[in-house]
Amino acid sequence: DPAPGVAAAREHLTRMTVPPGALGGVADLGVRLAGLAGTCPPPLPEPAVVAVFAGDHGVHARGVTPWPQEVTAQMVANFLAGGAAVNAFAATVGAEVQVVDVGVAAELAPAPGLLPRRIGPGTADMTAGPAMTRDEARAAVHAGIETARDLVVAGNRLLVTGDMGIANTTASAALVAAFTGTSADQVTGRGTGIDDATHARKTAVVAEALARHEPDPADPLAVLAAVGGLEHAGLVGFLLGAAALRTPVVLDGVVSGAAALVAAALAPTASHAWIAGHRSVEPAHTLALDHLGLAPALDLGLRVGEGTGALLAVPVVTAAARALADVATFDAAGVTEKNGGDAP
Amino acid sequence: DPAPGVAAAREHLTRMTVPPGALGGVADLGVRLAGLAGTCPPPLPEPAVVAVFAGDHGVHARGVTPWPQEVTAQMVANFLAGGAAVNAFAATVGAEVQVVDVGVAAELAPAPGLLPRRIGPGTADMTAGPAMTRDEARAAVHAGIETARDLVVAGNRLLVTGDMGIANTTASAALVAAFTGTSADQVTGRGTGIDDATHARKTAVVAEALARHEPDPADPLAVLAAVGGLEHAGLVGFLLGAAALRTPVVLDGVVSGAAALVAAALAPTASHAWIAGHRSVEPAHTLALDHLGLAPALDLGLRVGEGTGALLAVPVVTAAARALADVATFDAAGVTEKNGGDAP
Repeated sequence: DPAPGVAAAREHLTRMTVPPGALGGVADLGVRLAGLAGTCPPPLPEPAVVAVFAGDHGVHARGVTPWPQEVTAQMVANFLAGGAAVNAFAATVGAEVQVVDVGVAAELAPAPGLLPRRIGPGTADMTAGPAMTRDEARAAVHAGIETARDLVVAGNRLLVTGDMGIANTTASAALVAAFTGTSADQVTGRGTGIDDATHARKTAVVAEALARHEPDPADPLAVLAAVGGLEHAGLVGFLLGAAALRTPVVLDGVVSGAAALVAAALAPTASHAWIAGHRSVEPAHTLALDHLGLAPALDLGLRVGEGTGALLAVPVVTAAARALADVATFDAAGVTEKNGGDAP
Repeated sequence: DPAPGVAAAREHLTRMTVPPGALGGVADLGVRLAGLAGTCPPPLPEPAVVAVFAGDHGVHARGVTPWPQEVTAQMVANFLAGGAAVNAFAATVGAEVQVVDVGVAAELAPAPGLLPRRIGPGTADMTAGPAMTRDEARAAVHAGIETARDLVVAGNRLLVTGDMGIANTTASAALVAAFTGTSADQVTGRGTGIDDATHARKTAVVAEALARHEPDPADPLAVLAAVGGLEHAGLVGFLLGAAALRTPVVLDGVVSGAAALVAAALAPTASHAWIAGHRSVEPAHTLALDHLGLAPALDLGLRVGEGTGALLAVPVVTAAARALADVATFDAAGVTEKNGGDAP
């Protein structure tokens, strides 16, 4: 039997003044929100906040991207000054932006909107050894759990994942390969738009890391420590924390998708709280979504990261909840049902 | 050479603190908005209003749907009472709802939010003769032009199309077949979710109408009069009026797509103002979008009509404009550009 909220939502959908089935993916989202809340209509998922987990990567030294490592800290400053794409998109949908420093190489000055949860100055090079110790990975996961808790305690009812970290699509590719059983060739994408030579080098680096660690998905924390990033670890905790608080969380692109694979391996039922915001152009993202069984709300060819794609899905999530709360039933609205009896 | 706004937007996109090309379809939308406005950044497309054109259809008598014709007027009352899906979605994105009566069979009492632009009590049966006279079709087009003008004069900066009319996917299918050169089998969909027998009857009715009128796309007004609906005609004018006012308009599903084919045949350059909000599950909608060369922002499996899918795309359109206005350049934000020189 479905959960109480799920059954109530499905039943209510048959009485709403909408043709049966016509709400498509929006109805599916509404049912999921009702199931998560255990009641129908589910509470409106407002206000929303995007948590942008930021960290640096030792594998940057291997030449996997033409962007200098200091861009991570520079972009964090840009987020805090309100000048990045995530700020523009968050303003559009009425979401707050919080940046979580889990491991930016440069020391960051305290600032409004910056949550200091620094575990260290970035990861080590995954091709020379594990990117993190098991303790570091665990500490970053805890920082993410705390972030979810803090943001929900502050009154937020919808969480959104974001990320910043030069070279973090390399770590994402390795994580996705480990959890989906795919190869470096299949998972390694163009990231910020790298050229063929850099893409070949990046693919070889991912293959080298996988060969060195032979990551075992049965020990998800070990995989995370071996080839993940501190922002991945923070997102793992954020996703687990949101689920524990029965608060829906909208996933952004490949970095969030890679973190979700780790989190699902640690706690399979947690994925009930997760909504795929969009499909990025990174090949590893589609592999991750398919493995997780999540259908993305949007497919706009984005590959910005930061939480941008997920933010654009926030109104879709809100509309799903609002439809269940606000749309009149045929009876209440005095609308005649179709001939031929019951809705399917 | 591209228009001034287009060139400025493309140049600005290379300097924004986003990896080149990473904004995907959102960047494309921003460029289109800048081209329409003739300047970059384009004005923010706020506030938004959805105009729900409502009309009835003589072809309803042929048994193309199990929904009684009076549901059109009942749903209009539901819109005006705030109880329909279009109201829930409009509230989510901060849009106003206006209903335009271009030809509901029942007489509607005056009400706030209802624009009385009634041409007649619905169309005639397209399988027995033309659905409208040429003068009726022209009058409904004019009503749509006036609606666009009135809503822009009232301060709206983004228009959204909506529709209500039991049996209007039948008329839409016939219009799409006429303008795309496809057959009744290819264009006739399930509408509100009809069963196999009704679908077969509906397909035969569309084929019969096409055989009777042999609509000639070189005379778009004649095609509209022969097999269209009054709400299609109103939408044709709305789309032309929006374009003449250089105001972007977000298209909803198959009814809007069919109207857009008529409008594009009358004035090909008008499509510069049109943004495809979503892809509905109706097969004729995809045929119409492909013919128009419009890429839908969302693909959520919706088939509600009313403007619902287009409303969910409003934040994507707003984000596209806001990104061009608000995102800092590399220089201004002090963010280092990637090694290896210029952005592509």
